[in-house]
Amino acid sequence: MLKQCFDHLRASGPLIHNITNYVTVNDVANILLACGGSPIMADDPEDAVEITAICGGLNLNIGTLNQRTIPAMMAVGEKAQELGHALLLDPVGAGASTLRTRTAKNLMDRIHFDVIRGNISEIKTLATGSGSTKGVDADVSDAVTEENLDSAVTFAKAFAKETGSVIAITGAIDLVSDGQRCYVIRNGRAEMGRITGTGCQLSAMMCAFVTANREHTLDAAAAAVCAMGLAGEIGYSRMAEGDGNATYRNRIIDAVYNMDGDELEKGAKYEIR
Amino acid sequence: MLKQCFDHLRASGPLIHNITNYVTVNDVANILLACGGSPIMADDPEDAVEITAICGGLNLNIGTLNQRTIPAMMAVGEKAQELGHALLLDPVGAGASTLRTRTAKNLMDRIHFDVIRGNISEIKTLATGSGSTKGVDADVSDAVTEENLDSAVTFAKAFAKETGSVIAITGAIDLVSDGQRCYVIRNGRAEMGRITGTGCQLSAMMCAFVTANREHTLDAAAAAVCAMGLAGEIGYSRMAEGDGNATYRNRIIDAVYNMDGDELEKGAKYEIR
Amino acid sequence: MLKQCFDHLRASGPLIHNITNYVTVNDVANILLACGGSPIMADDPEDAVEITAICGGLNLNIGTLNQRTIPAMMAVGEKAQELGHALLLDPVGAGASTLRTRTAKNLMDRIHFDVIRGNISEIKTLATGSGSTKGVDADVSDAVTEENLDSAVTFAKAFAKETGSVIAITGAIDLVSDGQRCYVIRNGRAEMGRITGTGCQLSAMMCAFVTANREHTLDAAAAAVCAMGLAGEIGYSRMAEGDGNATYRNRIIDAVYNMDGDELEKGAKYEIR
Repeated sequence: MLKQCFDHLRASGPLIHNITNYVTVNDVANILLACGGSPIMADDPEDAVEITAICGGLNLNIGTLNQRTIPAMMAVGEKAQELGHALLLDPVGAGASTLRTRTAKNLMDRIHFDVIRGNISEIKTLATGSGSTKGVDADVSDAVTEENLDSAVTFAKAFAKETGSVIAITGAIDLVSDGQRCYVIRNGRAEMGRITGTGCQLSAMMCAFVTANREHTLDAAAAAVCAMGLAGEIGYSRMAEGDGNATYRNRIIDAVYNMDGDELEKGAKYEIR
Repeated sequence: MLKQCFDHLRASGPLIHNITNYVTVNDVANILLACGGSPIMADDPEDAVEITAICGGLNLNIGTLNQRTIPAMMAVGEKAQELGHALLLDPVGAGASTLRTRTAKNLMDRIHFDVIRGNISEIKTLATGSGSTKGVDADVSDAVTEENLDSAVTFAKAFAKETGSVIAITGAIDLVSDGQRCYVIRNGRAEMGRITGTGCQLSAMMCAFVTANREHTLDAAAAAVCAMGLAGEIGYSRMAEGDGNATYRNRIIDAVYNMDGDELEKGAKYEIR
Repeated sequence: MLKQCFDHLRASGPLIHNITNYVTVNDVANILLACGGSPIMADDPEDAVEITAICGGLNLNIGTLNQRTIPAMMAVGEKAQELGHALLLDPVGAGASTLRTRTAKNLMDRIHFDVIRGNISEIKTLATGSGSTKGVDADVSDAVTEENLDSAVTFAKAFAKETGSVIAITGAIDLVSDGQRCYVIRNGRAEMGRITGTGCQLSAMMCAFVTANREHTLDAAAAAVCAMGLAGEIGYSRMAEGDGNATYRNRIIDAVYNMDGDELEKGAKYEIR
């Protein structure tokens, strides 16, 4: 099923509209191209609504949000929803500031997202208001571990049911649930956290996977998580003595570029609960 | 002549002012440094007009344009024109939205550009309103091919005559015309389209070439196209197993960094019609 | 002492708030992660004040400043100062435009910075109004050389005394002074100037060093300069035939990622005057 999702993505080449932060936007564009999608960025309200209409998916990322881009996200989200596009929310830093938490919640009130992807602290903030954050990183006390996995799966399923969205919680162990099933994914490497924007990149790629597989949102979202984690493993295996996080960044995008459905299916490490 | 254009650029090190999109801006800065120019970015209206005055060339790129940067582009363009600077317009996404198309046309109405560089769909939109686009990429139905090359050359010459600008249309086959002559260039590789921003980078580098060769705008613009395409070929030849678009991006900029006039002259593949 | 500063940084992992330009922001984030810090970016006034409160250091960089980010810098700077955070100003392009010069001076009037880091032309502009600039690069006529070193050291000390800030002037020879002592640092390579944003990266990393070493601002700032220069040397030694400024950019961040206190102490080339 993961293979099928990736094959559909490569075959259809969906155009993904991104309103995203300016920190990681270039990597977001390149990973979309690497996985077989096409990126477009437009965040002026007058421009963005029209741009979204020619796309198939919308990726809203609230890192470096501002008073100009917030109304653009609202307007674009409503338009994309009206057109039946695949919608993804990445609530970067929800819990770290009132504006970010409120904006994420306002977006969720007005727009139905197919997928919401964040770290555990961000998702907890949206679900219960109780997540603690260290800036844009999850707080250690929130982390999903083998010990608390059962309750984390229960939480992911419950929040997915409540929102009607697929919930993707990424970290050392990743959870992706639609309320009924929950993928528990163990791909990836800890060193990916030393690169800026692996989460932003995953969200964009996940939006492309979901756009290309509208009947299989859960599996497509999980496929994206597996693909990113697997790319992190492949990229790391290609690191040479003296390489660090800048080179690792490139190697991960390169690994996505060279990956196909068979490699993904073979390398994915997951169970479904 | 291409060699001479590149040698002039390396010798003079022009300072290029860029109002450009935030997706590819870092690569734009690095390719300007790679080719021998210096980049500066300023897009606040109060700041930008003064900054442009200390530069030699102006590169206006309408990707991720907004209500704050549009008036800056207008004011800066008028100032740069008054000062006799080299002016280049990259109409990213013209045809994809009303705001982009209108902004590009408004800029062309108020400012005379030495060069306008875009893909065939963007240029057709500006010339005839008939270009179709797939976001920021040219539509396949518009593509310049060996079959329609004669009419494409005729179109490029006519639009160059009408605007008084050198028109650079880039794709699998590149056309650069001043209305009289038309360079038909066959450097480059299809894989360059899987990297975000190769067009933006080319525009910035072209602006540097033109700034350093004010008496030879056509040849300088063509030299930039050949240099970018040749860098794409050289960069690709240095790719190893497992490398992908992220590494390719670096290899292209690296190839420009190491290129000189002789290598450009030798590697350029073009005819003049 | 340099070793101790770096060890503290790696051990404490300070969260650094950056309001910085969109040209080099991704590299700024990655070098902060490489050196052991964590980056966060927020520049909307409503968001940024709250975000800064959860951080330990604040890095203000006025490249691509605008009418929205200037008030954010002011408000955030006052908040960070009230909270006793480490504050750093990078006056990118001061002297190149009235808005940049005025903004840098206004920030210095309202906020006490622990460190001000710039090139010689930028710092001269702030100190005497006499610096000349070539865009964002220092003017050759201003450069610190072995010939004018004595007077440059005197200047650095005097401006540090006047402002009560550590002054870091970077170029071929780097000076870092608190008014009493002046580090004269000879690490680095000229080729670093062919990469966009090595100065921005250094400022962010310096802010992390100073945040982790609040009792040793001068030494921490000097340690950051040595670390950046040493990374430039190590990165250059790993360059292969055909590599250029894009690869060099990655190699420098990689070198910081792999550096530790012992390597820094051993590779640092400085004297104290």
